Parts: sequence; C-alpha cells; structure tokens
Amino acid sequence: VRHDEDAGRELDRLREEVDRIDDELIGLLARRRDVVMRIAALKTARGLPVYAPEREEAMLRARRDEAAARGVRPDLVEDMLRRIMRDSYRSEGEHGYRRAAPEPWPVVLVGGAGGMGRLFARLFEASGHPVRILDRNDWPRADALLEGAGLVLVGVPIAVTLEVLDALRGRLPAEAVLADITSVKAAPLVRMLDVHEGPVVGLHPMFGHSVPSLAKQVFAHCPGRDADACRWLLDQIRIWGAFPVDADPESHDRLMATIQAQRHFATFVYGLHLMEEGTDLDEVLALSSPIYRLELGMIGRLFAQDPDLYADIIFGSGAGRDLARSYHRLFGRMLDLYERGDRDAFLADFARVKDWLGPLADVFLAESDALLDQARDRLDFRPGDTDGATTRRGDP
Amino acid sequence: VRHDEDAGRELDRLREEVDRIDDELIGLLARRRDVVMRIAALKTARGLPVYAPEREEAMLRARRDEAAARGVRPDLVEDMLRRIMRDSYRSEGEHGYRRAAPEPWPVVLVGGAGGMGRLFARLFEASGHPVRILDRNDWPRADALLEGAGLVLVGVPIAVTLEVLDALRGRLPAEAVLADITSVKAAPLVRMLDVHEGPVVGLHPMFGHSVPSLAKQVFAHCPGRDADACRWLLDQIRIWGAFPVDADPESHDRLMATIQAQRHFATFVYGLHLMEEGTDLDEVLALSSPIYRLELGMIGRLFAQDPDLYADIIFGSGAGRDLARSYHRLFGRMLDLYERGDRDAFLADFARVKDWLGPLADVFLAESDALLDQARDRLDFRPGDTDGATTRRGDP
Repeated sequence: VRHDEDAGRELDRLREEVDRIDDELIGLLARRRDVVMRIAALKTARGLPVYAPEREEAMLRARRDEAAARGVRPDLVEDMLRRIMRDSYRSEGEHGYRRAAPEPWPVVLVGGAGGMGRLFARLFEASGHPVRILDRNDWPRADALLEGAGLVLVGVPIAVTLEVLDALRGRLPAEAVLADITSVKAAPLVRMLDVHEGPVVGLHPMFGHSVPSLAKQVFAHCPGRDADACRWLLDQIRIWGAFPVDADPESHDRLMATIQAQRHFATFVYGLHLMEEGTDLDEVLALSSPIYRLELGMIGRLFAQDPDLYADIIFGSGAGRDLARSYHRLFGRMLDLYERGDRDAFLADFARVKDWLGPLADVFLAESDALLDQARDRLDFRPGDTDGATTRRGDP
Repeated sequence: VRHDEDAGRELDRLREEVDRIDDELIGLLARRRDVVMRIAALKTARGLPVYAPEREEAMLRARRDEAAARGVRPDLVEDMLRRIMRDSYRSEGEHGYRRAAPEPWPVVLVGGAGGMGRLFARLFEASGHPVRILDRNDWPRADALLEGAGLVLVGVPIAVTLEVLDALRGRLPAEAVLADITSVKAAPLVRMLDVHEGPVVGLHPMFGHSVPSLAKQVFAHCPGRDADACRWLLDQIRIWGAFPVDADPESHDRLMATIQAQRHFATFVYGLHLMEEGTDLDEVLALSSPIYRLELGMIGRLFAQDPDLYADIIFGSGAGRDLARSYHRLFGRMLDLYERGDRDAFLADFARVKDWLGPLADVFLAESDALLDQARDRLDFRPGDTDGATTRRGDP
C-alpha cells in the first residue's frame, strides 16, 4: 500500500509536469501568433501572397531534421507545424489582402446572397474592393449596380445561369471583366462571350463556401477573352492563397460529370438504400471504427447540405446521367459475378484496376491512412458516441 | 527602394523569430515525451490502461479555457494536444503492457503468419505472453504447439475458418480460451462452441493490421461460453487502449454485410467503372480539391490492399449479395428518375433521407469537414502533385 501511495504521488507529480509543459506550449503559440501577425501585415503591405509553398517546405524540412536529432518523431513535428500554419493562414486573412487590381474597382456579385456569394463578398472587401450584390430581387436597379463595375461575377444555379447572363446583355461596362463560378463551364463560357464584348473568364471554385480560408484551394480556370485584362482577378485569387488551374471547358465538364454529378448521384442512392433497408444507425455507429465512420460521413454529409445545389449538379449534367447509366449496367454485370460466386473473375478485375491505378493506389492508401490517424485524434472516437464532434467545432 | 529594403530585413528578422519559436516547440515536445515515458512506466507497473478518456477530456477542457484566455484559438490547442497524445499512445506501447492474465499463459495464433497475426503476436508478447504461431504448414506439430495454451486465437480466411476450427477439435486444453477474429461471427461462434467445451469468445477487430496503436480502436465482442474465464482477454484488450463492444452475432453479421461486403463491392465496381470509362486520372487530380481527392482515396485505397481479403469479405457474405442486389434495383429506379429529369422526386427522397438521418447528418458533415481541414494541412495539397504524400510517411 505504501508503495502504491508513493507511485500514486509520483504519477500526480508527473501529470502536473505535463500540464506545465502544455501551458508553455500555449504560451509559445501566443508568441508565434504575434510574430506571424506582424509578418502578415508586412506581407500585405508588400503585396506578397499569403501562401509561400517553397518557404513552407524548406522550413518543414529543417524542423524535421532538428526533431530527428532530438529524438522527436519528425511526422509529429510536421503535423503540428502544418496545423499551426493553417491557423496562421486564417489569421492572415483577417488583416485584409493586398489588392491586385490597379484601382479599387467595384465588384458586382450576381446571385451574391448565397453562401458562396458571402464568401466572395468578404474576400473582395478584405482586398479593398467595394462589393455590390445583384440578387434575384435587385434587377430593377441592375443598371445602377453595374455602373463602373470592374468585375461582374455570376454565381447562380446552373438552371438559370444562361438566362441570367442574357439579362446582363447590353448592361455591362465595356471594360468590366465578366466571370462566372458555375460548376459547368462550356455553355456559360460561350454565352458570356456572346453577351459581353469585353474581358471574359470562366471559373469553378473546387470547394464549398464553408472553407476556413482559401489557402491551398483550387479554381478551375477557363480563359475566355482578353487574358491581360483578366490577369488581376487571377492574381487576386493567388494572393488569397488559392491556385487557378487551367482547364479546357469541355474536359472540365466531362470530369465534373465523373467527380461530381455521377458521384453525388451514387452517394444519394447509397443513402436512400441505407434508409430503405432499415439500417439501424445506432448499431452501425457502435461498431464503426474510424474508417467506417468516415465512409458513413462521406455519405451522410451530402444530406446535411443544400439539396438544390446537388439537384443542380446532378440534373445539370447530361454526361453525369450517361455515366450513371453505364455504372448501373456495370454493377449489374458484376452482380452476376457475385451471384455466381466467381471469385477468380473478381480477382482478375481487381488486378486490372490496380494496374490501371499504378502507383496512385498506394498514394491513395497512404493519404487516407494519414487522414484516418487524424480522425482518431480529432473525433475523440468512442463507440456509440455520436455527439461531441459538433459541439467542439466553433471558436469563441 | 530604401523602404523596401528595410521591410525585407524586418521580414527576415521576424521569420527567424518564428524559427526560434519552432525550435523551442521541438524542445518542449522532447521534454514532454520524457515525462510521458515515465508516466507510461509507472502506469504499466500499476496496470493502468494506456488510454484514460476522462483524464484526457478534463485536460483538454482546461487547456482550451487557458488558450481562450490567452487569445489562442482553442481548436488549435486541442488539435495539437490530440496529435501529441497519439504519439504518446504509440510510445507507451513500446514499453510493454501490463499482463491481464494471472499467469503468462502461452497464446497460440492460428493463422498467425499474416499481417493481423503479426500485430497480435507483437501485442501479446509486449504483454508478457509467449506466442506460438500455428500457420497452415504447422499442423503436423499442432499438438505440441497447443499444449498448455491459455488462449487459442483463430484468424484465417473466412472460407476456411470452419474447417480450421474442426481441425482443432479434441486438441485444445480444456481450460484454454478459444477465440476467433473472423469478420463474420455467427457461424464461427456456433462451431467454436461445438469443437471446444471450455471458454469461448468471438471477436472482430474493426481495424486493419497497419494501425499505429490500438488506442481508441474497436473490437466487436460476441460472448460464447464462460465469460469469467474469458475476462482476462477483454481486460487485456482494454489495457491496449481498445474497446470491446458487445454485439449479437446475427446483428453483427447483418451490419457487416452493409458496412463491409456491400460497401466494398460498390467501391470495387466504382473503381472498375472509372477505368472502363477511360477516366484521365491526371486530369482528375489536377482539378481535385481535398474533398474529391478524399473520395478518390476511399476508392483507390481498396485496390492497394489485399485482394483475397476483399474477396473473402464480399463472397463470404450472402447478406452482402442480397444488399448489392437491392442497391442495384434501387439505383435502376433512381436512374429512371434521373432520365426523366424528375427533380422534385429527387428533392422529396433527399428530404426523407435527411429526416431519417436526423442530427447525424450534421454530425457527419462537421466530422468530415474537420477531416478535410486536416487533409489540407497534411497532404500539402498542390494541384497535380501526386507524389509527396507517400514519401513523407515513415519515421526514421
């Protein structure tokens, strides 16, 4: 008993030591934040981009080496620094961004009342542009809103995009950049070139409006007309930390049919099927390790979001429908194989896909493994516990 | 120019300050690791479990409050501490675990030469049990291997599980615990109760053999016979940091048909379809933001893993085949709706699933959003970059 008491006291003492170290850690984070805010102010003044990949990589390499030398796992240090940097990107945006345009031209957001509109309104305002919203009820005063605009950015449901573009015909200042953020690119780009004689560019932000910052996000970029006059917009996107990736409008739309329309449709049917089969979600969750929980999460998250947006993406894509049809046909063929118990045919097809993926299969495994490790940290995973995750999200 | 030079020097100075802070951070991590290793040694000596959820939660709450008081984002501090704790769990296992069994009974791993076998061999050895492997070529000396065993743990492909259990009949020490880790539970449990008159328990580890530690992992647990005699095994699992979750064998198998057999089959068909449609993966990756990359990752990771294991899970589940059939039927019905362009029917079904999920839809969204934030930190996401992720995985 004596011995146990001593050990208990020693354990308490060591735990207090851990708490002290963690306090020091918070102190370091506060100091780091102050220095990074001063860096951000300097960068903004000098017009440097928020995200500096080369400096980041060099810094991480140096810290990994140092960690290894001191017997700390390099992956731990790298993960921590990346997490701190995410926080920094977010803080940097709070100071505003350098304006890439030579003048603080007004930016008109057509359909700007939605989530994506609010995001862009915030970003353009933080970059020194006056922002005007032209939403569905604002058309009577459209001419006043569009007067002197340097950028008219259209972000409305796919089904009404062409019609909204038509409504802009003859109303746009000649030198304004006309751009859209629709998730299809070919038809809107043709129509933009038709309704406007000035600079035109098609954009598709490959992210949702809830992202904490634009650092490392991607825009598909389809040049339209007068790339020189559009350059400031692309520069501004880079200053926000995002990457414009050049895409041919037709290839873009074909790709989106795969990675958006058909994928979302299959996920929708999957969720519907879980319901129709009477799946007991509590039972599933009780036995779900992080990997299954993530699978469920990828299905469930669809139903927490805007149904109209998904309907838009799915029904707006003819190619998506064709892909859904061919997927259904292939599923039927494979189901025959399943019913025959033809394991050898399954293994042969499995090997073909593996070959086709090549080194990517391992990359995908490594990436998703790393994420699953993080899921275990973050989700405070305990069987059957379905709260927690949401309550811990917001900052004070 | 003068002003620019001054600003440049100031920027360099501030960056050096950040580097110094990051060095201090590494120093703190090294100190913390030393203290945690001493805690681990004390815990092992006293037989306390690795994972102490209550202490962890209380500690995180205290640090969040302190962070908020010092103007540091609480989520940042919590994420960092969780990441550090993951590292600690991993280190703690390196010191060995307390043995839950009263005696260091030999553990026989039937089919122990595979990845899962190696994992359990390491864990039981680290907990003070001699481990013997009885793999397919070892049957001639099975009797010697089984002599005096305290636990016989069967982990062989589903297709041969019953046959292997039959081969154990009449060879097991009367007091040995007979357990299995097969991913179906009903039939193996019945057969175990038939071939052995002593203690029996069915387990299904809900994770792969590549997990960094067992902290926060789940085992499905189906009691068989003589729970008292099996208790040390469950205690040992808890000491490793994992959770046994009680499950009825039939419910377990029905659930696994959903979250394993049918899900893996659908993912398999999805990958095959991507290939058959001639999808250009480089194009897809160039335009993939983290969310699409994660979707691709969940598909691609299947093909990087053991095809026989997936064939086992898929073809071993009759209920999975039934579910695949009803999913295919439902997909066909929904495809009709897609082809009719029946957006209203889509929205109605969407709303039904959302209702059915209830608050879980938002939980899933929040969880996967948090993971996607982390994906951006970790993957060093840059468009078109498909290396990187794998090269950074290993510790030195």
